[in-house]
Order: sequence, then C-alpha cells, then structure tokens
Amino acid sequence: MADRAINTVAIVGLGLIGGSFGLALRKAGFEGEIVGVCAPPYAEKALEIGAISRKSDSLHEIAESADLIYLAHKVDSIISSLDVLGPIARPGCLLTDSGSTKAVITAKAAESVKFAEFVGGHPMAGKERRGIENADADLFRGRPYILTTPHSNSLVLNEFKSWLARIGAHIVSMSSREHDCAVAFTSHLPQLLSTTLASTLETHHQEAFTEVFGPGLLDMTRLALSASDLWMSILETNKEEVLGTIDAFSRVLAIVRKRLVLNELEDTFTSAAEYAKQFRK
Amino acid sequence: MADRAINTVAIVGLGLIGGSFGLALRKAGFEGEIVGVCAPPYAEKALEIGAISRKSDSLHEIAESADLIYLAHKVDSIISSLDVLGPIARPGCLLTDSGSTKAVITAKAAESVKFAEFVGGHPMAGKERRGIENADADLFRGRPYILTTPHSNSLVLNEFKSWLARIGAHIVSMSSREHDCAVAFTSHLPQLLSTTLASTLETHHQEAFTEVFGPGLLDMTRLALSASDLWMSILETNKEEVLGTIDAFSRVLAIVRKRLVLNELEDTFTSAAEYAKQFRK
Repeated sequence: MADRAINTVAIVGLGLIGGSFGLALRKAGFEGEIVGVCAPPYAEKALEIGAISRKSDSLHEIAESADLIYLAHKVDSIISSLDVLGPIARPGCLLTDSGSTKAVITAKAAESVKFAEFVGGHPMAGKERRGIENADADLFRGRPYILTTPHSNSLVLNEFKSWLARIGAHIVSMSSREHDCAVAFTSHLPQLLSTTLASTLETHHQEAFTEVFGPGLLDMTRLALSASDLWMSILETNKEEVLGTIDAFSRVLAIVRKRLVLNELEDTFTSAAEYAKQFRK
Repeated sequence: MADRAINTVAIVGLGLIGGSFGLALRKAGFEGEIVGVCAPPYAEKALEIGAISRKSDSLHEIAESADLIYLAHKVDSIISSLDVLGPIARPGCLLTDSGSTKAVITAKAAESVKFAEFVGGHPMAGKERRGIENADADLFRGRPYILTTPHSNSLVLNEFKSWLARIGAHIVSMSSREHDCAVAFTSHLPQLLSTTLASTLETHHQEAFTEVFGPGLLDMTRLALSASDLWMSILETNKEEVLGTIDAFSRVLAIVRKRLVLNELEDTFTSAAEYAKQFRK
C-alpha cells in the first residue's frame, strides 16, 4: 500500500461532531492514532467509546504529531485555536474545522496558518441531542459535507476527502461566502424566527395558550430550545448575512399581511407549499 | 336507565375530525344512530369503517331526526350549514361545531339558530394526515377540547359534555374571543410564519439551499405544506386577531434584529428557550 498522508489525526473539541468523526473514522477502517483535545470529562468519555485513542492537553503537541487537525468545537473556540495552531502546524498537515459559519474562520485561517494547509468544512449533520454521549459513527452518512473552495490538489486534502467519502458523507464544494449566505437563509433565519415566535408569545402570554396549541406550535418553537452558547458565535460571525435575511423575511411578511387584509393569500400558500416540498425529496 | 337526551347524532363533514368523532362515540359505547352528511366517497368510507351507521344527503332530514348535530367541515362550510340548519333544528337539539375559529361561527349561530341550542367547539386534536381514511377513535384522547362560554345547564349539553369526557377529551371553557385571540398566537401566526419563511426562501432561492439545510428547516417549513383550502376560511374569520399577532411578531423581530447588531441576543435566547419548554411538559 502507498504511503499515507494521514497517519495521525487530532480532534479538538469532543462533542457530538468531534466524537462522531472519531467513531466514523474507526468504523471506516482508519488504523492510525486519533488524539483528542478537550476538557477532561469529555476526553475520558471519548476514550471510553473509542472515538479517540489518546488524550492530549496541548495544542503544541498535536501541532507536532498530527497530519490532520480537525477543529470541532464552537465557532469562537475554532477561531481561538487557529490563532495558536496556525503559526505552528507543520507543512503537509491539513487543518480543517466543522464550524457553522465559514467566512470569518476562513479569513482567520488565511491570516494565521503559516506552513500547513487549511480547508473549511461544515458537515450538514446533527441530532437533537448534543454532546459526546450522543456521538454516532453514522452521523455523516448520506448527509452533505460542505468544503470551502478553492481546493488544492495536495495528497493530504485528497486523502481527507476520501475519508469523508468513506464515512458516508456527500462532499459539496462552495465558497465561504456562498455557504454563509445560504445557511443564513436555511438555518440562522429559521433559528431566529423560532426564538422570536417564542419571545412574542412570552410577551403576550395568556393562560389559554397552554390549552389551545397543537403540534404546529411545537414544530415552530423546537429551535427556540437551542442552547444560546452555540448560537451567539454563529450569529456574530455571520451578522451581515443574517441581518439581510431578517430584512428579506420582513419584506415578505409585509406582503403576506397585505394579502391577508385583501383575502388574497391562496396563491402564496400554494406556492410556499410547493417550494417547501423540495426539501423533502 | 334514565331517558337519554342524545339518541341520534348527525355528523356533517366526514374528514379526520368528523370521522374520528363517530368512531370515538362508538368506542365509548354510544349505541344510537350516527347519521353522516358528506360527499358520497367520504360518506361511503365512513360507513365502511363504522364512523356512521347511515348516510343522509339532506340537512333538512337530519334537522328533524338528530338530537346532536356535529358540524365538522371547514369554517366557511360550517357557516353555510348554520344558515340552513339554524332556523329548522328542533328544540332540545344541540348544534355544535369543530371549527378552528369561534367568534364568527358563534355570531352566525346567535343570529340563525332559532329553536335549538348551540355551543361552539374546537378539539385541539389533529394529525399530519387529514381525511376520513386517517380517522381514529382515540384522536381526542388526552387532548383539550374547547367549548365556548357561556354554557347552559340543559340536559342535552350536559350529555354532550359527558360524551366528550368519555371519548377522553379534556374540556376547557373559554369565550369565543378568548379562544380566537389565543389561537391567533399559537396556531395562525405560526402557520403564517412557516408560509412566509418558505416564501422568503423561494424569493431568494439559491442552488446551495438544498445542500445546506438541516432538520431545523424541515421543522420550520412543515406547516407551510398545509393545504390552503382549510386555511383561507380560518384566516378570514380571525383576521383582526391575526393581523395583531403579525404586528406583535414584527415588533419583537425588530428588537431581535437590534440586539443581534449589538451582540446582545443571549438573554433573548435563554428566555425564549425557557418559555418554549412549557409547551412540552
């Protein structure tokens, strides 16, 4: 077998995504070392379930040993890690991340990564429950995995891509800007609408609310349950795009309001239903 | 056993709710006749599954024979049926409905019902799939069933309430106005937000959308799939309340936007999450 470009993997941040990436690599046949960097209870758990083979508490140490460094924590922590790892990661090492926004992270990498290579990533995979205890070797299977363009043709990047394919992910390439604009519409706007809906009901609370609600309200307020810690750094690193989607939504809502006044909403309903179907094919 | 006030039930409109009401009555031990009024294929299906024991195609005929007339079609059809049934339904007969708005229906009943008694109803029960083929004897079990106030103390109303209890519904009394205001926030606003979100994405469509979406977008656009026929008469008969909720939402969205600009959204997220939890107890 030819020499491999990736013999040692380091995963920084051992939550749902980091833990699942380790498990998925093992299931796909990766036999090298997987070093985990995270706070002790999570690293212990990751070792226990076999998502990593060794713990480390030093980014400096993994910068020396790892061929692939996978940054899987929150967006603000990914940015801080790039500050440390960027200048010291070795030539031939690939740095990548799983953060939910890409433009700020990619810009930080362009500024801080000196010798290694960087590619931004965003696995479109998730679960209602976060954390290493919900890690799943099949989390990425059948799901899109965004990689930011441009790509090099380096050995290490090609090998990373082939591991992504082997863990079942469907690689989709796009620019950081294209990604951030799309997720502002498909993820960040829906999150803010759900939070705003819950907040509106809270502001106008009536006792009757808890009697007269159905499954539709549960759907529409599920995202409002999201933990704020994850979301603050997502929204702050995609602020301009998200503000744009709020304004776009407000304009359409004003049209919907006007059509409601005129009893002319039927076509809007039909067309929105048709559009919503395409996400269910 | 004492004489019963309800020996014959007529169900007008044999979809999910009408069909389920018939099945639920049977399961709870109702032994009288259940007459169904609906277009032939639905009435046939209702007979076949035992939701009704006989079909009729005449509102005049059921006005003569039924002790309880249960109007279970769309809001605009309920209003038309009240126009016909109101003047001819017998003294001692109870007219009730399952429409999603109550003020317009109650006002129509006050104007048209001459000899019979009327109470407005709204079972907070539903399923993703509509239609008689999804009728379920347990649809109402454990779910709130709104009855509009004021209530009389008539035999027939008390007997109807005791059947509601026996089919497992949890009776909640409130005024039509209180009901319509509450459902505007918990049901009609969420519906319009889902439709508006799908419509916003449609307006700003990018190819990347279908790659970069997760389960959150599916939750937030599920209501957008709703059939427009049901919704037009719901929204038209609760227009003022719904417009008020759109305006309330827009004000909160403007605050959310401002806090996003200032990186001050954390408390909003925490408080909305806490509020959303109460619907899940």
